[in-house]
Amino acid sequence: MSIIHITLPDGSRREYPQGVTGLAIAQSISEGLMRNVLAAEVNGEIWDATRPIATDAQIKLLTWNDTGGKSTFWHSSAHLLAEALEVLYPGVKFGIGPAIENGFYYDVELPNGQVLSQDDFPAIEQKMLELARLKSEYNRQEVSKAEAIAYFTQKGDEYKLELLEGLQDGDITFYQQGNFTDLCKGPHIPNTGFIKAVKLMNVAGAYWRGDVTRKQLTRIYGITFQKDKDLKDYLTLLEEAKKRDHRKLGKELELFTFSENVGMGLPLWLPKGTLLRERLENFLRKAQLKAGYSPVVTPHIGSKRLYEISGHWEKYGQDSFQPIQTPEEGELFLLKPMNCPHHCEIYKSKPRSYKDLPLRLAEFGTVYRYEQSGELHGLTRVRGFTQDDSHIFCRTDQVKDEFGKVIDLVLYVFQSLGFEDYTAQVSIRDKSDLTKYLGDPADWDKAEQGIEEVAREKGLNIVIEEGEAAFYGPKLDFMVKDALGRKWQLGTVQVDYQLPKRFELEYIGADNQRHCPVMIHRAPFGSLERFIAVLTEHCAGNFPLWLAPEQIAVLPISEKYHDYAKQIFREMEMEDIRGFIDERDEKIQRKIRDAEVKKVPYMVILGDKEQTEGKVAIRKHGEGDLGSMALAEFIHLFKQQIKTVADFV
Amino acid sequence: MSIIHITLPDGSRREYPQGVTGLAIAQSISEGLMRNVLAAEVNGEIWDATRPIATDAQIKLLTWNDTGGKSTFWHSSAHLLAEALEVLYPGVKFGIGPAIENGFYYDVELPNGQVLSQDDFPAIEQKMLELARLKSEYNRQEVSKAEAIAYFTQKGDEYKLELLEGLQDGDITFYQQGNFTDLCKGPHIPNTGFIKAVKLMNVAGAYWRGDVTRKQLTRIYGITFQKDKDLKDYLTLLEEAKKRDHRKLGKELELFTFSENVGMGLPLWLPKGTLLRERLENFLRKAQLKAGYSPVVTPHIGSKRLYEISGHWEKYGQDSFQPIQTPEEGELFLLKPMNCPHHCEIYKSKPRSYKDLPLRLAEFGTVYRYEQSGELHGLTRVRGFTQDDSHIFCRTDQVKDEFGKVIDLVLYVFQSLGFEDYTAQVSIRDKSDLTKYLGDPADWDKAEQGIEEVAREKGLNIVIEEGEAAFYGPKLDFMVKDALGRKWQLGTVQVDYQLPKRFELEYIGADNQRHCPVMIHRAPFGSLERFIAVLTEHCAGNFPLWLAPEQIAVLPISEKYHDYAKQIFREMEMEDIRGFIDERDEKIQRKIRDAEVKKVPYMVILGDKEQTEGKVAIRKHGEGDLGSMALAEFIHLFKQQIKTVADFV
Repeated sequence: MSIIHITLPDGSRREYPQGVTGLAIAQSISEGLMRNVLAAEVNGEIWDATRPIATDAQIKLLTWNDTGGKSTFWHSSAHLLAEALEVLYPGVKFGIGPAIENGFYYDVELPNGQVLSQDDFPAIEQKMLELARLKSEYNRQEVSKAEAIAYFTQKGDEYKLELLEGLQDGDITFYQQGNFTDLCKGPHIPNTGFIKAVKLMNVAGAYWRGDVTRKQLTRIYGITFQKDKDLKDYLTLLEEAKKRDHRKLGKELELFTFSENVGMGLPLWLPKGTLLRERLENFLRKAQLKAGYSPVVTPHIGSKRLYEISGHWEKYGQDSFQPIQTPEEGELFLLKPMNCPHHCEIYKSKPRSYKDLPLRLAEFGTVYRYEQSGELHGLTRVRGFTQDDSHIFCRTDQVKDEFGKVIDLVLYVFQSLGFEDYTAQVSIRDKSDLTKYLGDPADWDKAEQGIEEVAREKGLNIVIEEGEAAFYGPKLDFMVKDALGRKWQLGTVQVDYQLPKRFELEYIGADNQRHCPVMIHRAPFGSLERFIAVLTEHCAGNFPLWLAPEQIAVLPISEKYHDYAKQIFREMEMEDIRGFIDERDEKIQRKIRDAEVKKVPYMVILGDKEQTEGKVAIRKHGEGDLGSMALAEFIHLFKQQIKTVADFV
Repeated sequence: MSIIHITLPDGSRREYPQGVTGLAIAQSISEGLMRNVLAAEVNGEIWDATRPIATDAQIKLLTWNDTGGKSTFWHSSAHLLAEALEVLYPGVKFGIGPAIENGFYYDVELPNGQVLSQDDFPAIEQKMLELARLKSEYNRQEVSKAEAIAYFTQKGDEYKLELLEGLQDGDITFYQQGNFTDLCKGPHIPNTGFIKAVKLMNVAGAYWRGDVTRKQLTRIYGITFQKDKDLKDYLTLLEEAKKRDHRKLGKELELFTFSENVGMGLPLWLPKGTLLRERLENFLRKAQLKAGYSPVVTPHIGSKRLYEISGHWEKYGQDSFQPIQTPEEGELFLLKPMNCPHHCEIYKSKPRSYKDLPLRLAEFGTVYRYEQSGELHGLTRVRGFTQDDSHIFCRTDQVKDEFGKVIDLVLYVFQSLGFEDYTAQVSIRDKSDLTKYLGDPADWDKAEQGIEEVAREKGLNIVIEEGEAAFYGPKLDFMVKDALGRKWQLGTVQVDYQLPKRFELEYIGADNQRHCPVMIHRAPFGSLERFIAVLTEHCAGNFPLWLAPEQIAVLPISEKYHDYAKQIFREMEMEDIRGFIDERDEKIQRKIRDAEVKKVPYMVILGDKEQTEGKVAIRKHGEGDLGSMALAEFIHLFKQQIKTVADFV
């Protein structure tokens, strides 16, 4: 038997007999690794960990921590679901059964028009676990098209037969585990024994091949894990995520709403949401002023010509909100999908010298992008949103420094809002094909190197993504983990060599020659809409005190104390503490409960004792009674808590 | 001779012999009046003051203080210009010669292709004054079409002949003064002697009948007055207005710009203009919060359906920015021309009770309205502008009170910005036809009466305009006089009974029944664009200290003091005092002059003495040296000056 060379991700090269499998390689490294290997990436393609490798190869062993490992696990679980269904519902026919972001589904047609409900899930889950315990191997088998057709004709599964029509002879594989065989290109995990926890989530109708004129199949969603605990954690997370869903909280806390007459995906910000939004804006506006940004305001439309210059029209025109005609023949405007072209026009409004750079134009600019109605989602996927946008026009030698300053600002924002867990993803060129990138390669080298250097200098946790740069420049994205451990992309910094050229921007250099500036696009929040959605879910609607739309609820115990309540409220208003007096004719317990539901950070309770002693009784949301104190003392305590951001709000 | 009855504007009725003239009536009242009468309004039509009146009539004697008096004076001056031209340029031919807003013009064709320039003006002005001193009477003469054609054929003036083609026999009159006769329907002043001061302003080309395919005539613009002093005042005002033109100052102070690629009438706010704008917004935002307004934010587009409900589509659709299509068939959006429909949708987002009213939704909402390109003018006539908009939803019994509160807010704004001279124009129904107004007449009575009452209670200087109410409700407009005495309409408050009905808004009353609320539209600034334009011209770019985009210029005498300058600057920044350090390698005199041109309120000059003593030398814009003082002292002085509005910025 001949020897092949296997290169591992760390660059090490090992010799193995030809026909070695991923699993065997894992075993040669450690028993522990072997138990965890779900699949193997062989020369960039994901294979069964049990599939023999015939030639020299680069390989990466995939476990639960790799997206490819997880999807192999879940796709294999779909086969396990199918196996269970075949036992419980003999004659069931199968459509497709892929892995999805969280789990998998299988589209099936139950025999005799049977209908499936959530009530049937426990029995199916039981059967799946029972079959899993058999540790049946997933066996890969290459079959001819004729054999495949013969098999499914005999089985009577017209869906698989239809799928076969689209496949080439020689490309067809079956996978078999236990008594179940499926048409499938794989890969799969070694055996069903890896699957230790099973949960079917949902059942829905799904047209065969997404075609509404064809038969509606039953789509069964499920998720599986290697450990029971992981399933429990996942379900807890799901439950928690549901409670924190910003669409639910947005309604309950009266932050925003939608109206059919205005249009889908176009949020209407209610008073409390607007206060929150304005505070966020002011916070960043002040930080930006201190950091040397120049605020600008530009219109929400621009002539079509503007977007022909920028290239946006050619690239996105067809799928966007369409041009706006006017009573004047031939005049066309577009809703602005981004603020950069307007900022380029401001740059051009007067001659610039190298001494004027960097010029940092900042705008809370509302832009409009058409999204399919099916893709709209609360505030995270909308058709109109406000970017905390800025464009920094600078010289090549300033890129690194400007990048560093932007990172400082982004970290300041994250810190002020309680996001503590983030990584910085640096997207650079694909080194194997430098021709597809616009701009001077030497400038690129300097920028990529500068970004990486400065990100390290700032102590960021960095992931370098080669080949992920846009053709017009490298970038850095902040990936933030929220309180539930979910990852969100917030905050982006992007170098751009293209737009300044398209707009023929220039400055006079120290050499008295014309030069083209570099442009940096950046948005620490990304958009106010998306950021507020993420923040709402992150803090479950319990916004930091300085951001809370209503910071205090003044709760007089009865009508007798309304005047005292008004006096206290007025004094707090003078100190810019915002909130409301609950003058309803309700019991104090009810008032407290309602303020708790509204997630108001502080309750100021006023009764006989407080009025007589000229004090206030304070209750903190989620913490309870803080006792009675002088108003000045409470104001001091309150201000202490917002001190860190007080300068900025 | 029989007697006719003449009714004067004060309602008094007098008897005069048939054939009496306006002039004779004036004489019968006072010699002084007679000398000032320029024309007479007879039964609503303006006549020569010398034209005999044959029947009973209502008459009003018109002087310089009446628009009709002034236009008669200026139109007569056009004839005087023509008379002078005929003396100086024999063979000159005449087109039309109307009065305009300020003065008059005459379109003429000079003989032998002669060209006129400003250099020719003095001679023409001299000739006009010379002819004026002859006190030639303007004589009205009814002529037949045949006579008229014969006259101008003989004279060889093809333009007048063409004008005659469009006239009916029996409707044709000539006016003659001195040696000049014109085809003219009048009216005219009694004689040329009234014209005491003459100024030709400009000369331009003008196509005959505005048709580019026809001959280009020479248009001569002029203005005349009854007194030399009035002309001098007018020219001074013109000079001052030119200096204060917000388009000129906007450019010099770098407040805003326009770009052809973005589109005409769509201002781009530059950093300094944006700071000014943001301060104005914050000022009003805070005042509104204290006055119980609830801020909201809504998108800049809405579905076409929204504007079908509101009625805007039917009324303005054709002349507006046209609907925006999307990739989805049949989906149509419109750029929002006003914020009210969006606010109505917010009102509808939850059930409302009588206890929830008034609900005051406020938004700095940018709207887009299509204006013909020829009508665009700086920031006063634009295609996109931001209204300081609010819609107050209230009960009928709250209208008066809410109106009063809005007046308080508007007066607070005017006072803070230095507008001291204004009148309040109350527009009510045309009492002779109440059927054309929407809503319950009893509600209208109450609202009209309430508005008038509350405006008087607030001590406003009121003008009642009967018949000027919109069909959907009465309103109050503030007419403000600026520093040059020019009138601007700023600040509007409008009751609306219609929109709440169209949107089927309702609230549950104390009677547990459904009721429709009343809506009040209001905007103290009107729009930020227009307001900033007026404010710029009012204060000639010398904005109040709290509004100035750059409040201080720190001027180190040489590079030696740059560090001290930075330290001083930083300390002022900590106190929210904004400005810049002039670190250019220029002489201090030059730095001071440049800061003066930029209209920076305070200059902080730093040299050896200041650094040694730890002081700052202060210079105030337009006032000069304030001497040397400790920084803390200057900061105190500075803050004192913005104290009145400090709470709001």
